Amino acid sequence: MKLKLTLLSALIFTGGLVKAQDSLMIRKIYDEELVNGKSYENLRYLCKSIGQRLSGSANAQKAVDWSKKLMESYGFDKVYLQPCMVPHWVRGAKEEGAIIKGNKKISVHIAALGMSVATPKNGLTAPVIELHSLKELATLGKDAIKGKIVFFNRPFDERFIETLRAYGAAGDQRFAGPAAAAKYGAVGVIVRSLTGRQDDYPHTGTTAYLKDSLNIPAAAISTNDANKLSAMLKMRSLPHVKFYFKQNCMHLPDAPSFNVVGELRGTENPNKYITVGGHLDSWDLAEGAHDDGTGVIGSLEAVRLLKVMGYKPKNSIRAVFFMNEENGDRGGEKYADLAAENKEEHIAAIESDLGGFTPRGFSFQGVSPSLLNKINNNWGPLLAPYGSGMLVAGGGGSDIGPLAGKVKGVVLIGYLPDSQRYFDVHHTPDDVFENVSKRELELGAASMASLIYLIDQHGIN
Amino acid sequence: MKLKLTLLSALIFTGGLVKAQDSLMIRKIYDEELVNGKSYENLRYLCKSIGQRLSGSANAQKAVDWSKKLMESYGFDKVYLQPCMVPHWVRGAKEEGAIIKGNKKISVHIAALGMSVATPKNGLTAPVIELHSLKELATLGKDAIKGKIVFFNRPFDERFIETLRAYGAAGDQRFAGPAAAAKYGAVGVIVRSLTGRQDDYPHTGTTAYLKDSLNIPAAAISTNDANKLSAMLKMRSLPHVKFYFKQNCMHLPDAPSFNVVGELRGTENPNKYITVGGHLDSWDLAEGAHDDGTGVIGSLEAVRLLKVMGYKPKNSIRAVFFMNEENGDRGGEKYADLAAENKEEHIAAIESDLGGFTPRGFSFQGVSPSLLNKINNNWGPLLAPYGSGMLVAGGGGSDIGPLAGKVKGVVLIGYLPDSQRYFDVHHTPDDVFENVSKRELELGAASMASLIYLIDQHGIN
Repeated sequence: MKLKLTLLSALIFTGGLVKAQDSLMIRKIYDEELVNGKSYENLRYLCKSIGQRLSGSANAQKAVDWSKKLMESYGFDKVYLQPCMVPHWVRGAKEEGAIIKGNKKISVHIAALGMSVATPKNGLTAPVIELHSLKELATLGKDAIKGKIVFFNRPFDERFIETLRAYGAAGDQRFAGPAAAAKYGAVGVIVRSLTGRQDDYPHTGTTAYLKDSLNIPAAAISTNDANKLSAMLKMRSLPHVKFYFKQNCMHLPDAPSFNVVGELRGTENPNKYITVGGHLDSWDLAEGAHDDGTGVIGSLEAVRLLKVMGYKPKNSIRAVFFMNEENGDRGGEKYADLAAENKEEHIAAIESDLGGFTPRGFSFQGVSPSLLNKINNNWGPLLAPYGSGMLVAGGGGSDIGPLAGKVKGVVLIGYLPDSQRYFDVHHTPDDVFENVSKRELELGAASMASLIYLIDQHGIN
Repeated sequence: MKLKLTLLSALIFTGGLVKAQDSLMIRKIYDEELVNGKSYENLRYLCKSIGQRLSGSANAQKAVDWSKKLMESYGFDKVYLQPCMVPHWVRGAKEEGAIIKGNKKISVHIAALGMSVATPKNGLTAPVIELHSLKELATLGKDAIKGKIVFFNRPFDERFIETLRAYGAAGDQRFAGPAAAAKYGAVGVIVRSLTGRQDDYPHTGTTAYLKDSLNIPAAAISTNDANKLSAMLKMRSLPHVKFYFKQNCMHLPDAPSFNVVGELRGTENPNKYITVGGHLDSWDLAEGAHDDGTGVIGSLEAVRLLKVMGYKPKNSIRAVFFMNEENGDRGGEKYADLAAENKEEHIAAIESDLGGFTPRGFSFQGVSPSLLNKINNNWGPLLAPYGSGMLVAGGGGSDIGPLAGKVKGVVLIGYLPDSQRYFDVHHTPDDVFENVSKRELELGAASMASLIYLIDQHGIN
């Protein structure tokens, strides 16, 4: 009995020591970032001096070159590029435009969806049919749809507390709407922008054609203009409203590009990896500040923080700037392929691609309820004082997703910032550096560094 | 044993029912606000059509008149004004200005601190002494300070996770610095703006003279300019840097003004009150969007939500727009005086004056650890799904503060939004409607309505 008690005390004591040491390290990580952080100035450069960086563009290459140099300047053990071929879609040189043709002509704001085909050279004019779901295509049938422009106008459901869920619930209109409408004979598709905000920005984003569907031109329309169009379609005095739009986008041959990888070598297990990353590419209309400048810069900052604090990781830690998340995920696929090819062991991968807002926590993909419970018990109290204690089941992200199928035992983790403002700016020209808060970005970087530290010290199983 | 078990089951069952009913009501509150909320458009009017509303100004009166009409339009049981006299400080008609006089003249951005006196008509020029704390006045002594402009330049300590703590830690320079420096013979005071952001906005805010100290002119300087001034003071080649500033502010006689109160009458306890409010006045340089437009509008919205949902409160619920929080707290004092005079019983008062950002939770002033524990156990799980589950010990706020001394048994509660961006805009011309997120404002209003509902249903003791 006495021995047992002593053992128990020793265990508690050791546990207490570990917790205190972890707590101290995390406090130091935050202090370092909040006082000496480089993330905000790095993000400024990426957004303001490079700017938009769609896969295959000259700017994407500039971003790759700059990122590599930046990582090298931090003295990481290894900095290198992972070549991958990426789709090369361009919006085209000429201006896009759209007009509602009712009793008068009303110009509206559109932007071609990423990967869409162009309209005919002089634009496309057709009657419009407003739908709120893909299912309605089948309900209405080919006779109702044929020769028309399908206008998908289901708004964000504002009742979701996390906006990502509203995005998910409305997203099929953009991802799959054009291909589905084509099957019913539609000649074009206009999609209400995927945002809850009422404004004049069209929100672009990728759409997916299917092999067996016609490729019809598809564009996003701003929410304000979607409301206008919908109102006009409901006016009995205007039975013949037509819609005109013109876009010049095209697919060029696949182009060479790269993931950028910076690595701290593990002192105990150099072939075991903890990855943290975001995607370096952005849509062509935006600076890609929140999507996903904050993700790459925050990820890099997390690794830089550990390095600059003199931390010697047990396992190798990698900051990865993935290429081509927006319209192909080729970088993510390549990273996973190489990991498998090189027989790397991956402990965990963290992805930051939900904006650079105040951190709330992390989502863990496919972990058992008991492991999630353990993570919460052990790490929740360490992260909660910094607002990052929400440790929940959920997705990892598009870039790290392919690892799951190709590398055994990796835990995929999504960084969860506050979600309220993300879809205000997502995929629009308003996604600019000025809309990022320095402190929110820094807190995010520090929260990721803290989680990497905990995983490196204690594993995750 | 069997009976006991049955009793226990019954208790659990009843408890479960209550929780389920509460949970359902809170979900409905959020749905109503996120789908049909009026808060954003009300805030737009207050900021854009009325604008700045410093106590005693014509605009403050406009805001009072509009607020009363707005409350009346909601069909509350009672809407009325509580007259109170307020200080009437004005910045003056002429422009303020400041110049660092070193080897060349550099114009810098200042703003008179609220309640400050003016400089002489042609401005004030004097050598500058840079200090980082009020204590240094005593260390250096009168000989070092006399005839000089004291430049308090202690920056925000960025290591605080909650920015309110950084504000608290730097705030004495503005609140008490001018009066303290005057005692040592200073002729003027320049205070580094109370923000962590590096920009060109001077952040005004009130300063307090003491009865036995000389009233010397005091101004806030932007952080960028504070850094410039500090750098020049450190240059050996410039041993005689002087500072010039001119401000034309003045105190007019106290002016009549009002708190605006809207009330839902309690069906069981009409003389027991739950108050929710913010302050209607703002600084003269700002639209007062986050400070405290979101506070008054969010508070009103919380009560409107309960009304529009057909909720019949047990106790009387009041939305209160307090006047004069920024430079006098006269409205708060008046509200407490009248509560005492009318022998009202006050259950709780909630104040929203930390900006309209994503809600995190509430702080409870002076509640026992066991009561706070009970609040957490009972209400934490109901509020956490909405991100408002952080229920901690802490202050209530300036406006409701006087209730504590004058009314027995009232629990004072502060609404706690995310704090990261508040001091970016606080007391500056950048505190505008455009910097408020619709959803963040709405979530705040719904979280306050939810807490009011819980207090009304279950009491708080």
